[in-house]
Amino acid sequence: MTKPALLVHPPLGLFEMRLADYDVVHWPTDRKDIRAAVTIGHVGISNAQIDALPELACIVCFGVGVDGIDLDYAAKRNIAVTHGREINHEDVADVALGLIIATSRSFTEGERVLREGRWTPPLAVPPQRRLRGRKLGIVGMGAIGQAIAHRAEAFGLEIKWTGPRAKPDVAYAYEPDLKALASWADILALAPRGDQVGLINADIIAALGSDGILINISRGTVVDEDALIAALKSGALGGAGLDVFQEEPTPTSRWADAPNCTLTPHLGGGTREALYAGSQNVLENLRRFYAGEPLLTPLA
Amino acid sequence: MTKPALLVHPPLGLFEMRLADYDVVHWPTDRKDIRAAVTIGHVGISNAQIDALPELACIVCFGVGVDGIDLDYAAKRNIAVTHGREINHEDVADVALGLIIATSRSFTEGERVLREGRWTPPLAVPPQRRLRGRKLGIVGMGAIGQAIAHRAEAFGLEIKWTGPRAKPDVAYAYEPDLKALASWADILALAPRGDQVGLINADIIAALGSDGILINISRGTVVDEDALIAALKSGALGGAGLDVFQEEPTPTSRWADAPNCTLTPHLGGGTREALYAGSQNVLENLRRFYAGEPLLTPLA
Repeated sequence: MTKPALLVHPPLGLFEMRLADYDVVHWPTDRKDIRAAVTIGHVGISNAQIDALPELACIVCFGVGVDGIDLDYAAKRNIAVTHGREINHEDVADVALGLIIATSRSFTEGERVLREGRWTPPLAVPPQRRLRGRKLGIVGMGAIGQAIAHRAEAFGLEIKWTGPRAKPDVAYAYEPDLKALASWADILALAPRGDQVGLINADIIAALGSDGILINISRGTVVDEDALIAALKSGALGGAGLDVFQEEPTPTSRWADAPNCTLTPHLGGGTREALYAGSQNVLENLRRFYAGEPLLTPLA
Repeated sequence: MTKPALLVHPPLGLFEMRLADYDVVHWPTDRKDIRAAVTIGHVGISNAQIDALPELACIVCFGVGVDGIDLDYAAKRNIAVTHGREINHEDVADVALGLIIATSRSFTEGERVLREGRWTPPLAVPPQRRLRGRKLGIVGMGAIGQAIAHRAEAFGLEIKWTGPRAKPDVAYAYEPDLKALASWADILALAPRGDQVGLINADIIAALGSDGILINISRGTVVDEDALIAALKSGALGGAGLDVFQEEPTPTSRWADAPNCTLTPHLGGGTREALYAGSQNVLENLRRFYAGEPLLTPLA
């Protein structure tokens, strides 16, 4: 039996060993018999690619994000989209809390001082503010936002959140206005849908202020990164803990003179357990698609 | 009125501005009229200093630790000791959780890769293990140990602990044997009394094992640091998150080739709020001592 053609974009390295039941094709291609594609959300399948694939009926995203896909366009073409719903929200929330602690408590500067032999007693770095009692604003109260809030409570952080609409099943105080939330917050943690490009602009950063800390574990593009870096350099923003960037890999020179940053290379969802669960999810969605069964994790 | 003589050892910089009611003396001194001393626990007042101060009747420690004082000797001389009980246990626990996350999720290596321009997609660092479901062993279940446990629960870590004796008011599972706890644990977090020099020896480190992570926010001297570094270099230990060191500042060359470490320069208790509370505590203990009133925070 002929194996069905499957577009894998971008190429996914060793994971493709698990796609032996398919005829894996990489972009560019002129094949017209491709009915399904596997991608990672922040790369996605472009409208131009969709136009070039007349039989395409299903896009399977590895992680939770689908921001590299024009969902309206896919819907118009009757293309189903699946994603890795809740395969890694706890892992991402763990990294969010790690960045909150590391940034608030000067881990990066402290480790630099220690490793460069500049630690002079009694205090290697200036005293930091205590976490207990500080105000944490969470942007987006999906699975990741809720997992962040649950952890943050144990540290005595006061929590409010914003999002498109209040949620009856969420107990934390809802603030409809993002700028009001940023003004209130000492720490603003971003967990919105990844397609909200530029949501955190210079105005929101200014509202967070010179003692404020911005945490981003969602997508780099939800922040105006030039405005963020300018605010860090001028002292208009107190600090930032970032796992995601406008461009990945982020050019290192952008961050060289930006103080009070802890920067990690988009490792939030990258646990072994999440990658395994994501792989299984991709395989099962593909199997169901070709078998004509209901998809496991269609986009709601 | 003559101000009472007060030994401050080591000198405490700007804090001494707040000691204007006292005649502050630094070591060495040949004054024999010193009745009280202020110190920080890991430096302390030595037996030789006690011998040289015939009128000494009170040692006031700034933080929670009193490990630089021979308590038996002080008791024999009828010298009261006070400390900064519970002024910073939550801050130290925050840093412990930060180190657990940073070490488990490769923050230090990730940031190094990012800042040195070595981030190559899709994964900048090898996939890490998920925190949820991992086993956290806590050594010492005082105020700091309990604050660590409370936070760790929110991350889905399974918790057991050891200490000199079980505590009826602590709900977490008690394991009387330290080595058995280290064998069971994926992560071993140290919060014992600081005077247990060498408690974590090569044997305990071997029991923690090649996938194990050691976290220390208590005192560097509770760990055999040479054995720790050897185990990291050989791969016999998986990683370490350390805020305290055998010698502080720690010589940087010791750590240059030790992989999977996140190192912070003893900043655990150093929040502005804790330093202020510690200052107030020192002043009030001194006031009470000279007024002949019961001390505020005598060592239990």
